[in-house]
Amino acid sequence: MTRTIVSSATKTVVIGFDEPFCVIGERINPTGRKKLAAEMVAGDFSTVEQDARDQTEGGASILDVNAGVTAVDPNTSEPPLLAKTVELVQSLVATPICIDSSVPAALEAALEVCRGRPLINSVTGEEERLETILPLVKKYDVPVVAISNDETGISEDPDVRFAVARRIVERAADYGIKPEDIVVDPLVMPIGAMGSAGQQVFRLVRRLREELKVNTTCGASNISFGLPNRHGVNAAFLPMAIASGMTSAIMNPCRPQEMDAVRAANVLMGTDANCAAWIRHTRGAAGLVEVGETAANQSRENGRRRGGREARRRAG
Amino acid sequence: MTRTIVSSATKTVVIGFDEPFCVIGERINPTGRKKLAAEMVAGDFSTVEQDARDQTEGGASILDVNAGVTAVDPNTSEPPLLAKTVELVQSLVATPICIDSSVPAALEAALEVCRGRPLINSVTGEEERLETILPLVKKYDVPVVAISNDETGISEDPDVRFAVARRIVERAADYGIKPEDIVVDPLVMPIGAMGSAGQQVFRLVRRLREELKVNTTCGASNISFGLPNRHGVNAAFLPMAIASGMTSAIMNPCRPQEMDAVRAANVLMGTDANCAAWIRHTRGAAGLVEVGETAANQSRENGRRRGGREARRRAG
Repeated sequence: MTRTIVSSATKTVVIGFDEPFCVIGERINPTGRKKLAAEMVAGDFSTVEQDARDQTEGGASILDVNAGVTAVDPNTSEPPLLAKTVELVQSLVATPICIDSSVPAALEAALEVCRGRPLINSVTGEEERLETILPLVKKYDVPVVAISNDETGISEDPDVRFAVARRIVERAADYGIKPEDIVVDPLVMPIGAMGSAGQQVFRLVRRLREELKVNTTCGASNISFGLPNRHGVNAAFLPMAIASGMTSAIMNPCRPQEMDAVRAANVLMGTDANCAAWIRHTRGAAGLVEVGETAANQSRENGRRRGGREARRRAG
Repeated sequence: MTRTIVSSATKTVVIGFDEPFCVIGERINPTGRKKLAAEMVAGDFSTVEQDARDQTEGGASILDVNAGVTAVDPNTSEPPLLAKTVELVQSLVATPICIDSSVPAALEAALEVCRGRPLINSVTGEEERLETILPLVKKYDVPVVAISNDETGISEDPDVRFAVARRIVERAADYGIKPEDIVVDPLVMPIGAMGSAGQQVFRLVRRLREELKVNTTCGASNISFGLPNRHGVNAAFLPMAIASGMTSAIMNPCRPQEMDAVRAANVLMGTDANCAAWIRHTRGAAGLVEVGETAANQSRENGRRRGGREARRRAG
């Protein structure tokens, strides 16, 4: 049973095969958000605060925190900025953190101040990254996202990406890091660029789960890049990835279409006991009083009856 | 390569592992539709006509036609009514037909008049059904839906349902009917009644495909029976079933949420070449001029660039 434990001071999230899908909120990230980057450089964290609250309310299980404002020397400027942002977010919400940086010194600075057991984003199969990040992962006893590319870049061959993931897991084991603390990102290509991108991911996720016994994640919205009605594509991709065994995604928890798809997928994977979260959310969305157990029981009763009748009719 | 060929006089549909998902329109069925039943008994086929047109326009690949108006003696009344309904539908639309009846004489009457190669709905693992329906399937050289229950009813144990399906395929082989002409319905239980219903179906579909090499179908909306926001549950269930290998479903093609989910799942399974159908449908829905290849190419270009940049950023 693979269980990746991520926690804040007061809240624990388990990423696992039999757990509800783990939504990692992607919003606190200045990459591609010039306004947010400028604010953070100027010491204005109002958008960060809003994003922390909105994503938690939207249903994020974990909040990714990135402070990569592309300064001239990120090795100097990013560590204090990331540490400050992590502290700020932890002062506002109980949601556990995913510390996201390509600067090792920034990861360590944030690890020093972060309460609980944050997830680290990320290590890759590149030798230099492995040798820098894995000792941090071991020292702080935290789980890490492992992205399946290496010095040669991102292979279009899913077998190569699987091999990279396997190598990271093996190297982590050399440091005494267990597979349950590695969350593999098999890398999602845009389906508009590569028609096999979906099938690749679904198969990779299944192999990662069955052969390496690891949890998985991905940047979910990348699948729909360049297509019209991206939310429609994302809202089908997430349930398909979940049915294939994916256990988390870095995504926008403030998008109702994608979040409804995740909630429904939890129902269908049997990780939403008695459909209680689904019923609660639906009734909440409709402005109705929650009825909880009663509704679940009712559904169970009706379901039995209908199952029998429909089947008899069709079977003749 | 399993390919189930279904056709009308002028149109052929292939149900298959590498084909777009086959939507079998469920609407022309008086079961549970008292008004429609009364109309059909009275010789008024206006609703049937409307349903044939609407479902074809909605995107149905095949139209299920059922005339089970629950007369006192269906053996007498249903054969001519079903034959008449099939002829009527075939005079209106080119969409191939799925002849649906629990009355063998009605199936044969409809088979006599139906042009092309209709799908038959259904046989079960019940001995009497096997001995009655399989000779018809062989005589008319048509494919058949095989529902995985038998004399003992519907087992809650998916392994038993798989065994029933295997037995039907084996019995069909005794009649010289190939596995590619058997479309197995593994039976979908309401998830509100049985929390494992989703996982059961996903696993069964995978086994049916890998071990028996057959196409699969189901009454998709049964999964959400008794729950609030059924369309939300259905719209996640369909992509999950498709990712697991399901190749068709009996469903309502006039529901945009479910149909968008199917269209997106086709994109993600790589059966919508260059995302052309997705782009066409989205632009059509938005009232825009179709741009076809240009848009697909654009998406491909953008996708490549973004994939590279995003990956570099994340890999650091």
